[in-house]
Amino acid sequence: MTLRLSPLAAALALAALPAAHALEGMWLPEQLPQLRKALQPEGWAGANLAALGNRAQAPVAAVVSLGGCSASFVSPQGLVVTNHHCAYGSIQHNSTPQRDLLRNGFLAERFEDELPASPTARIYVNVEAREVTGEVLTPATQALSGAARLKAIEAAHKHLVAGCEQDAGHRCQVAVSYGGARHELVKMLEIRDVRLVHAPADMVGRFGGDTDNWIWPRHTGDYSFYRAYVGPDGKPADFNPANKPYQPAHHLKLAQQPLKEGDPVMVAGYPGRTSRLRLPSEMAFAFDVQRPQQIAAYGARIDLLQRLTRGQREAELRVAPTVAGLSNAHKNWEGQQASFERSGDLVARKTAEWAPVRAWVEADPQRQARWSSAFSAIDELLQMQHLHDLQSFWMEQTTPAVLNQARTLYRAAQQRALPDAEREPGFQARDAARHQAALRTFERRYDAATDLAVARQFLEGALANPSELLPAPFIAALGLEPGTKGPAIQARLQALNESSALARGGNREAWLTRPAADFEASDDPWIRAAVALAPFDAERRRSQRERAGAIDQARTQVMQARLAHAQATGQALAPDANGTLRLSFGQVKGRPGVDGSRWEAFTTLRGILDKHQGKGDFDAPAAQREAIRAGRFDRFAAPELRSVPVNFLATLDTTGGNSGSAVLNAKGELVGLLFDGTLDGVIAEWSFDPTRVRSICVDARYMLWQMTVVDKAQRLLREMGV
Amino acid sequence: MTLRLSPLAAALALAALPAAHALEGMWLPEQLPQLRKALQPEGWAGANLAALGNRAQAPVAAVVSLGGCSASFVSPQGLVVTNHHCAYGSIQHNSTPQRDLLRNGFLAERFEDELPASPTARIYVNVEAREVTGEVLTPATQALSGAARLKAIEAAHKHLVAGCEQDAGHRCQVAVSYGGARHELVKMLEIRDVRLVHAPADMVGRFGGDTDNWIWPRHTGDYSFYRAYVGPDGKPADFNPANKPYQPAHHLKLAQQPLKEGDPVMVAGYPGRTSRLRLPSEMAFAFDVQRPQQIAAYGARIDLLQRLTRGQREAELRVAPTVAGLSNAHKNWEGQQASFERSGDLVARKTAEWAPVRAWVEADPQRQARWSSAFSAIDELLQMQHLHDLQSFWMEQTTPAVLNQARTLYRAAQQRALPDAEREPGFQARDAARHQAALRTFERRYDAATDLAVARQFLEGALANPSELLPAPFIAALGLEPGTKGPAIQARLQALNESSALARGGNREAWLTRPAADFEASDDPWIRAAVALAPFDAERRRSQRERAGAIDQARTQVMQARLAHAQATGQALAPDANGTLRLSFGQVKGRPGVDGSRWEAFTTLRGILDKHQGKGDFDAPAAQREAIRAGRFDRFAAPELRSVPVNFLATLDTTGGNSGSAVLNAKGELVGLLFDGTLDGVIAEWSFDPTRVRSICVDARYMLWQMTVVDKAQRLLREMGV
Repeated sequence: MTLRLSPLAAALALAALPAAHALEGMWLPEQLPQLRKALQPEGWAGANLAALGNRAQAPVAAVVSLGGCSASFVSPQGLVVTNHHCAYGSIQHNSTPQRDLLRNGFLAERFEDELPASPTARIYVNVEAREVTGEVLTPATQALSGAARLKAIEAAHKHLVAGCEQDAGHRCQVAVSYGGARHELVKMLEIRDVRLVHAPADMVGRFGGDTDNWIWPRHTGDYSFYRAYVGPDGKPADFNPANKPYQPAHHLKLAQQPLKEGDPVMVAGYPGRTSRLRLPSEMAFAFDVQRPQQIAAYGARIDLLQRLTRGQREAELRVAPTVAGLSNAHKNWEGQQASFERSGDLVARKTAEWAPVRAWVEADPQRQARWSSAFSAIDELLQMQHLHDLQSFWMEQTTPAVLNQARTLYRAAQQRALPDAEREPGFQARDAARHQAALRTFERRYDAATDLAVARQFLEGALANPSELLPAPFIAALGLEPGTKGPAIQARLQALNESSALARGGNREAWLTRPAADFEASDDPWIRAAVALAPFDAERRRSQRERAGAIDQARTQVMQARLAHAQATGQALAPDANGTLRLSFGQVKGRPGVDGSRWEAFTTLRGILDKHQGKGDFDAPAAQREAIRAGRFDRFAAPELRSVPVNFLATLDTTGGNSGSAVLNAKGELVGLLFDGTLDGVIAEWSFDPTRVRSICVDARYMLWQMTVVDKAQRLLREMGV
Repeated sequence: MTLRLSPLAAALALAALPAAHALEGMWLPEQLPQLRKALQPEGWAGANLAALGNRAQAPVAAVVSLGGCSASFVSPQGLVVTNHHCAYGSIQHNSTPQRDLLRNGFLAERFEDELPASPTARIYVNVEAREVTGEVLTPATQALSGAARLKAIEAAHKHLVAGCEQDAGHRCQVAVSYGGARHELVKMLEIRDVRLVHAPADMVGRFGGDTDNWIWPRHTGDYSFYRAYVGPDGKPADFNPANKPYQPAHHLKLAQQPLKEGDPVMVAGYPGRTSRLRLPSEMAFAFDVQRPQQIAAYGARIDLLQRLTRGQREAELRVAPTVAGLSNAHKNWEGQQASFERSGDLVARKTAEWAPVRAWVEADPQRQARWSSAFSAIDELLQMQHLHDLQSFWMEQTTPAVLNQARTLYRAAQQRALPDAEREPGFQARDAARHQAALRTFERRYDAATDLAVARQFLEGALANPSELLPAPFIAALGLEPGTKGPAIQARLQALNESSALARGGNREAWLTRPAADFEASDDPWIRAAVALAPFDAERRRSQRERAGAIDQARTQVMQARLAHAQATGQALAPDANGTLRLSFGQVKGRPGVDGSRWEAFTTLRGILDKHQGKGDFDAPAAQREAIRAGRFDRFAAPELRSVPVNFLATLDTTGGNSGSAVLNAKGELVGLLFDGTLDGVIAEWSFDPTRVRSICVDARYMLWQMTVVDKAQRLLREMGV
């Protein structure tokens, strides 16, 4: 048993890593002292790596998760800095055409002016992270496959989580890495009363918009401030005016030394997902089949949402977060796809990466007996999985949003009839509040006319070309059939919506607590459709679980083989990102741009005036432009740049989820916020190229300049000790 | 008399120019030896400037004009190299959906495969350039104003031109510079049998398209080859299969030394127009009033033309040259406008530039008596002129193309009734062939449905907001009235077109020779409209001539004062470009790009793969991409770039008309072709900023590589001595 897991422990414990890719890897804090040698040539010789990697101290202890974004405490009063695009939903939630915070920005003058963030907003403070692989992958579980395996693993996870969540106000999860070979129990304090404290004007925080997204040179002031509030007892609580600011044990300090090109920087945050340890067949499916379809569909969807709401500020505000999210993914995928196609040999390289592992397994009878069958099984299993994924994607694209809500509500009602421990993940008692918050977010973002028009368009395309991608029960539940034309689809969807109280938004929240029988007796057409689809949905989930369990078994074994091979050959293996706390290391550094150009390490305020067009994505606020023109740099200018630095490039290995992460100097002081990568670097999700990959960061000096000179946020500056 | 002109001669004869703007100026070849001192620090110390500026030797003698573009002889057999975008009309003229030379490129395997260029294509070989200011601005003429002045100047010009054109096969013109203060008689051999020899595929010659137009980094193979043909007697002749290649006395040789950053380069060509010596009031009108209207109108026009012809290859081919021309101007104007608005103080700087001249005039009674009244008069005259210009612009935008043809044809018929010498310029016997060629070009580019839809759109806008911009007689001639709505306009225009033989394209050329009476008796509705408009058109021309003559008198005096002031203060004054042969000097040199980036001096083949998208403006031919991927660089790679250089930046002062110009090294050898500037440098038409202005050039090595490795144009390479 211990032996089976030892390759992992050994790989994590390697004393020194190959220097070539010293900057690659999103490391567990525990691995940090082992990087000393590799990091020396990168400017980290003098740093106290043990302290920087200590989860119980600042800086790491000051870093929090927002669930999808990263953030950090920057004052003893629970002030949290993150990206503007991470707080976007909360700014939008508080915006109306009459009080357009999104457009104009927001600054709370006093604590009592701070606004409740979006209902789903949470601040998660890391309390504990403990490896629990042995408790999850017992010998009995390791022998299982199919749904039974998943059930055993889930049971172990639930048991661990339930025990952990005995501690009220905490949220726990078991995070899986190395393709199932490592399990880690993470315990977070879950702060539910999150308030919006400050956001710059949209055309500071989102300057450059989608045009500049993933692009350098960049001039985006992508920062905003939340504050964590807790009950008078100091424990997490729902929003209440009587709540008090949370007092974190640790917070980040702002850097005292100006940042320069070549300086070492690290990033501490919650990267979401990378796929570097995936198999060649997975990469081939992603880029040869899946991505091209996704890119086309999202492109069409963005286009429709923008066209249908143009000029109607109310509808525009409703769909703005959706459009922003879709656009971000779309540009990312396009960038990955372009890099993939341009390089031309990534699948071959991935194949070459795995070939020695497979050869090593086959070279020894004992290893062969242990792992060979998993290598043979996994590709066939994945092929089935990929077909399933395509079907799911097309159903998502064609399903009206209210039907999705109805399906979730009905499923939750069905699950509520079961004892809590037997429910499916995501439908336990602990998830109820999140379901409510999600429904409230839906209330604010749902625009019926737009949603139906989008569904009509996608359904029209899908039904005109009947294929197995839209299953028959799904089509029937909508009262449609293959070949139904656009006007008939439109009429049908509209008829459903018009006679549906759920669509009109009567009292949606009431359905969060009604029993399944109420759904089954309802004559609301969308609820009836959801009830009709339930057996089909359940069967899809059942077969999917069976397959997922088989894949999990094979993948765990394949990854155990890979780890054993890494150990045997003296290589270190960074785990793929999985949403848990990680540290990355790099330097502030420019790079070659498009052939014939070079990207410098810093941009400055000058570029804001250069890019300003007075419209669209380049419409800097007049007050800001005046301050720049007048050269009112206060103390924030970098002499060598003759201006205030705005954004900078760094050789940091990051990915989605790292947004809002603190960028720290070698002393662990805040020098900026990570907010983006460059478009030709997004392929790093699958394959890391150290010559091209750069993270794009807001320079803290720009944030402080804007807050000092333009937005007059003196209260917050004092609080941060500026 | 001599005294009055002496400031000019003196300014041209200044021995040394201020060094600060050594690279500014499009110089007459005669001025070149005087630049020796100023050019020394720019790397020209060892160059034989006298030889480089000698009109009777290569390189200058090898440089030709295409009328709007520049070009050069590159073989003893009359082979001419120019830009792809300069030969675009000729490539398009020979393209059909079945034989799409525009898309696929063209390479004549033998002399007899070379294709007749567009009917308007000409090659003008400079034979003589002689200053004739004294013969034009006689004392009597200098005293004149209004139409009488223009008539006297035109008479002098006509006399000089007629004398010059006694020499058959030549075309002469008097070019005016320094705002009327200098007149130069230019004599050109006019080669009428121009043939298309070679053009690369559209996605080599136009790679990057409008997206990259005016942009760096750039990867455009903007070159094509013509050949000049003459009759068996060696004299210019119309196209005839029996014609022979023209044998120029001089042709350019290709550089033997590889070009590097920092190398001195010069450009020899025919820059069209700059406005650096214009008055502050002219700059204010251009950017505060005129350009914003033009930018909006051209933007709408391009949009319509593209939308209406999308997917119909026939119509697309017809409007392609129009769209290309409009887009080019549109992007240029937008760039100028952006630079103007960003700098914010250009009018103030222009005012400051003229203020000392005015003060100097007023400081002396004699100078005051001679020039003061001209300074007072010109601004008021210009104000009237600017109103007239706006009216003309809006009539152009709203006039259906067939009506324009009808007006030109009728006017030509009216003019033909007069003795040749009394006709208006452009309507003399010598212009007849050009009218015919223009009509043939119209035949190929006219797409009735598109044209009417565009006219309808613009008329609808103009008639909905009645203003003095569309004069009443013009509206009446179209059978419309203020307030006519879109559908009624459409119906009216269609009715006119349907009953018009001229619109249907029966026998348009017959009208080139019919007498005015035939027009007046015609019942073709467009010809009737043209006849109805003729008195209005004539009156507009009459009043315009009266005003233009007054402005000419004032401007000539103002410029004489400016030249006198320059002489008195020891400054040199480069003449504005006026379409005559000029030389500019600079260096191969990168520059800062958008804040946070740097533009390197060269791009390489790598960038073609980087930019390739397989669609739109970035769709490099497969054969080219294969050759790049395989690293088949032949002998054309630059070792320091590890690839073949594609385009380069140079600090050359150039403008529209310079397109296709030879870029030469200090030995006068060909190193590239100039084809563009950068968008933030187009303001250089009005105000030159030496830190920003860069010309964009095709590196000759890219052209030779593409011809050698991809297009197999060995016949031409041998002919050029490669």
